[in-house]
Amino acid sequence: MLRLLLRTPGSMRHMLNMTSISSTCPIMSSLQAVHNIPEICARHGITDVVLSPGSRSAPLTLAFARHPAYQGKLRVVPDERAAAFIALGIAQATRRPVVLVCTSGTAGLNYAPAVAEAFFQQIPLLILTADRPPEWIDQLDGQTIRQRNLYGAHAKAAFDFPPDTSHPDAKWHAGRIINEAINLTQAAPAGPVQVNIPLREPFYPKEEIVYDQDVKIIREEGAMQQIDSTLAGKLGNLFDSYSRILFVFGQQSGQLWQNLLARKWDDYKLEETMGAVFVGDSISNVTSNEEFFDVTHNLQDIVMAGSSDEQKALLKPELLVTVGLSLISKSLKQFLRQYPAQEHWHIQAAGEVPDTFKCLTTVIRTDPTEGILMLLNAVTAEHLLPEQKRKEREAYRSTWDQATFKASQVLHAENSIFNASPAFGEFVVMFRCLQNMLANTALHLANSMAVRYTNILGIPQGKQIEVFANRGTSGIDGCTSTAVGAALAQPERPVVLLTGDVAFFYDRNAFWHNYPTPNLRVVLFNNHGGGIFRLIDGPRQQPELEEFFETRQTLTAENTARDFGLRYFPVSTFAELDAALPVFFAMEGGAAILEIFTDSQTNAAFFEEYRKAVKTAFA
Amino acid sequence: MLRLLLRTPGSMRHMLNMTSISSTCPIMSSLQAVHNIPEICARHGITDVVLSPGSRSAPLTLAFARHPAYQGKLRVVPDERAAAFIALGIAQATRRPVVLVCTSGTAGLNYAPAVAEAFFQQIPLLILTADRPPEWIDQLDGQTIRQRNLYGAHAKAAFDFPPDTSHPDAKWHAGRIINEAINLTQAAPAGPVQVNIPLREPFYPKEEIVYDQDVKIIREEGAMQQIDSTLAGKLGNLFDSYSRILFVFGQQSGQLWQNLLARKWDDYKLEETMGAVFVGDSISNVTSNEEFFDVTHNLQDIVMAGSSDEQKALLKPELLVTVGLSLISKSLKQFLRQYPAQEHWHIQAAGEVPDTFKCLTTVIRTDPTEGILMLLNAVTAEHLLPEQKRKEREAYRSTWDQATFKASQVLHAENSIFNASPAFGEFVVMFRCLQNMLANTALHLANSMAVRYTNILGIPQGKQIEVFANRGTSGIDGCTSTAVGAALAQPERPVVLLTGDVAFFYDRNAFWHNYPTPNLRVVLFNNHGGGIFRLIDGPRQQPELEEFFETRQTLTAENTARDFGLRYFPVSTFAELDAALPVFFAMEGGAAILEIFTDSQTNAAFFEEYRKAVKTAFA
Repeated sequence: MLRLLLRTPGSMRHMLNMTSISSTCPIMSSLQAVHNIPEICARHGITDVVLSPGSRSAPLTLAFARHPAYQGKLRVVPDERAAAFIALGIAQATRRPVVLVCTSGTAGLNYAPAVAEAFFQQIPLLILTADRPPEWIDQLDGQTIRQRNLYGAHAKAAFDFPPDTSHPDAKWHAGRIINEAINLTQAAPAGPVQVNIPLREPFYPKEEIVYDQDVKIIREEGAMQQIDSTLAGKLGNLFDSYSRILFVFGQQSGQLWQNLLARKWDDYKLEETMGAVFVGDSISNVTSNEEFFDVTHNLQDIVMAGSSDEQKALLKPELLVTVGLSLISKSLKQFLRQYPAQEHWHIQAAGEVPDTFKCLTTVIRTDPTEGILMLLNAVTAEHLLPEQKRKEREAYRSTWDQATFKASQVLHAENSIFNASPAFGEFVVMFRCLQNMLANTALHLANSMAVRYTNILGIPQGKQIEVFANRGTSGIDGCTSTAVGAALAQPERPVVLLTGDVAFFYDRNAFWHNYPTPNLRVVLFNNHGGGIFRLIDGPRQQPELEEFFETRQTLTAENTARDFGLRYFPVSTFAELDAALPVFFAMEGGAAILEIFTDSQTNAAFFEEYRKAVKTAFA
Repeated sequence: MLRLLLRTPGSMRHMLNMTSISSTCPIMSSLQAVHNIPEICARHGITDVVLSPGSRSAPLTLAFARHPAYQGKLRVVPDERAAAFIALGIAQATRRPVVLVCTSGTAGLNYAPAVAEAFFQQIPLLILTADRPPEWIDQLDGQTIRQRNLYGAHAKAAFDFPPDTSHPDAKWHAGRIINEAINLTQAAPAGPVQVNIPLREPFYPKEEIVYDQDVKIIREEGAMQQIDSTLAGKLGNLFDSYSRILFVFGQQSGQLWQNLLARKWDDYKLEETMGAVFVGDSISNVTSNEEFFDVTHNLQDIVMAGSSDEQKALLKPELLVTVGLSLISKSLKQFLRQYPAQEHWHIQAAGEVPDTFKCLTTVIRTDPTEGILMLLNAVTAEHLLPEQKRKEREAYRSTWDQATFKASQVLHAENSIFNASPAFGEFVVMFRCLQNMLANTALHLANSMAVRYTNILGIPQGKQIEVFANRGTSGIDGCTSTAVGAALAQPERPVVLLTGDVAFFYDRNAFWHNYPTPNLRVVLFNNHGGGIFRLIDGPRQQPELEEFFETRQTLTAENTARDFGLRYFPVSTFAELDAALPVFFAMEGGAAILEIFTDSQTNAAFFEEYRKAVKTAFA
């Protein structure tokens, strides 16, 4: 382990003084407990650190900067709001905790939006906030706020690092805290954990930093909750008794489906075994997986918008089974509330359980992969069921298939409004961008219209596109930074962000650092305001629409592109779009912004047309 | 009152339906309690509202937008972080609470840095966070976080507005909460108060909004705590017994000094009566006040940097009296800790008391104006004291006078390093900018170097310059937005911001809205990084200085100026500076940025020279 950690030594100047490595070294610095933090983090497999400059945090900065485990993965981002979302993007992509380091004062408060997103999206972040020592809180000393438990209900836990570790118990406690904090970030449900670290001057060590190689490591081994065979049998029997079974998949990383595939998923044949309907939002990452897309539905937004009450009654499930976090599709949520299933089973390993559709009856407390495999084992394969039951199931699936077919015609029919020479508008351009996306793209969808439009359109299939969106809190505040984090974490993979102008300019500081992201492509839909408000009933009827809802704003990304050395493709026509797309999406050339200029009234008119087309298709 | 409120009716479309005004109106909307909020705020004298667009907050947006009291003072700022600092800037300038309105989710978390600043700087803000109703929290519904008590220890109070006001008690409670929240924002110590407002759909009223004219108003009348004559006599006697008396003034609006002047201050003659030494930081706003500057000291940064231990022992007070909030001068704080006074009296009306110098002995619980006037009445005028005492006091004042004189020579002597053809650098340019500032300027100092340099240099005297800085938390996150708020609040007054590049680019969204600030001048010192770290011992000796401390960043403000239509003056030499300054500072021409390009190594070298000059002057 020691050798492994030291395989990438820094320059001579930074190099670990190997001869002095010993836990019993008599001249250990009073900052030793702080210097041990990077060592403990490294032993837990953490490799990425995002820090923002500051004076109080200097001991942490130096300890991470000089540790060989983080070379090239320690990044400096001055705006803490962006820094925290970048860390979130890295953690999302790597599925490992990322460390955040900031100075005292409001620095840590600027992390708060990303911390809340991480909390609800269950992304592991270890937040190290440097603080003044306790005696200087509330004494009007500079850059001092009340940092204990800074994130309140939005952190999984908050620890107070001991200000003085001269007592052996305090030294033990310091290491204990860091181990526990790291373990908690990953224990289901994963999430953000704060460790507030009071630091007294002097901050700058006179000697070389020594990384104690005897740091205590406490590992948490994730034992899987197994459903016992009696319960599985009972659930299987119940399942067999239903004819109208609907699986709905909420936000979920692609990992779930890869786990299933790795566990000999092929042996089962999802649809044939379960005889159910499977619906996934774009952020469920199931519908874009080539192993699953032919048995999953992804046009529920159109289906629900088009279906009459009678049609919806036919789509209503008896048994609803859910996995994952939030749904984008508001109309699907409303449908499931309005037509509640008799039973709703939700599979979730740990944590507070949501009842999104007001019809929850059973919580299956296990990991989603385990839960789905358990059901596959417990239920009777459809071809072994009585004919009557088989027919009822087929009928239910067929109702959904027909509805999805109608929905797909709205988009893909030769004479659909999307294909029949529409006016240049954001919805159609988004449709074309999705078609042109490279395989294996990490697709980031900004709130609020990009993620909604895309969910209507569905993710192109067979390209192994993985979809990310900040739907834990659905904020616009860090969408670009999250995509930047993703681009930094996986430089070999195309990372595409679809975003609107309000979200984009809100988070411009995502680019304000010195790390290139040659694989990042930002498609910016600029209608000069929050166009969503023109599309939804309510605000669009208000005289205050333009001034107080739409955020009329005049910026374009041209100067931003200039500021940050990004290639810039402004586009206002289909001809320009067609010319730009292949160049823009190609992996060569470096980071780029494709700015799509549209008019919000044209967009609103097209959306009206779309609504009519949906109604017509389902009439 | 009614007439007064209605004196600026909106367009016919928005107009109040006068005939339907009645508290017993039978068709009151279920949103009536929400619609009453702007009415209650208006009756409390609130005129300014900063809102950020959103869907959940629509009922609040409409209720404020249609109320006649806020016409022209209701501003939309899309980035909530900037919005909250803009509100803080308005509240600082107007000395009245400002209302913030945001939608649900992370919107409110982006307020957090400004809320903490308002808390520690004691600025009244009424924060209205729209929320989902309680039943939808933690159900994976969109844009939902845990908004109750969102600001934790950094709000004076947090109220939960009732989600349902159909019961008369709940309706009463709604009005009660708003009155109490407004009163609390202003009760000493002033500060931010959150009201979380759960809102159920529909958000958009079908009928005209009716402002209930019978809303209950509860006023808090600020009775002043009076020091009784026995205690005043005791304090006066104690005061008389000391020879070395030092008043130190921390952050304080100019209002304190205006109050003193209004209370026949002239009758007293501060120095002659008290026989004390008066020291004020630039943000104390005393040293720049023409009635006070000839008796106050403002070069304590230089005095403390130059004085030897022996000299400091002579400057040490026996009695220290303090008023106001934080001090910029770290060296003054360290001096007062190292040479603790026998007694330290702190005058503060209410709230938790700081012990900044670790020598606090007595808290005088009254308003600073009252406290100072009480002392003036209670003490024996110096000319009536025994000769020995008079001489000792004179000697103490003389020690301080001589030290301040030496300090002023470092800056102002004909052959000072500032006057003797120095290299072009930020410290010297700041010196010249301060000299050229228009009278009556509201001067905003950004953290961290601008405020430090300026405190060293002292505020030009006799120009009634009022100084503001976010020294509640000393964050860089909202300095520009705060200045923008100040410019919006007092369009007739020159508002100048002195800032560095890290603070400036951090908060670029300060300009991202549609409200012109023709009176705003931004002097941007761009050394392409956090130059402070090169000036202080510790980081400048670290090999990690450039990469991990200085925030090396390459932006200039040119594109920002272009984006927001600001005049732009780039300056790299004294000739360019001299040509630009008069045009730049003139009130005509509209908002402008003066970007001073300097080199951080030159700056560090000059600061070294300055340090030497100080040592020499005090040798």
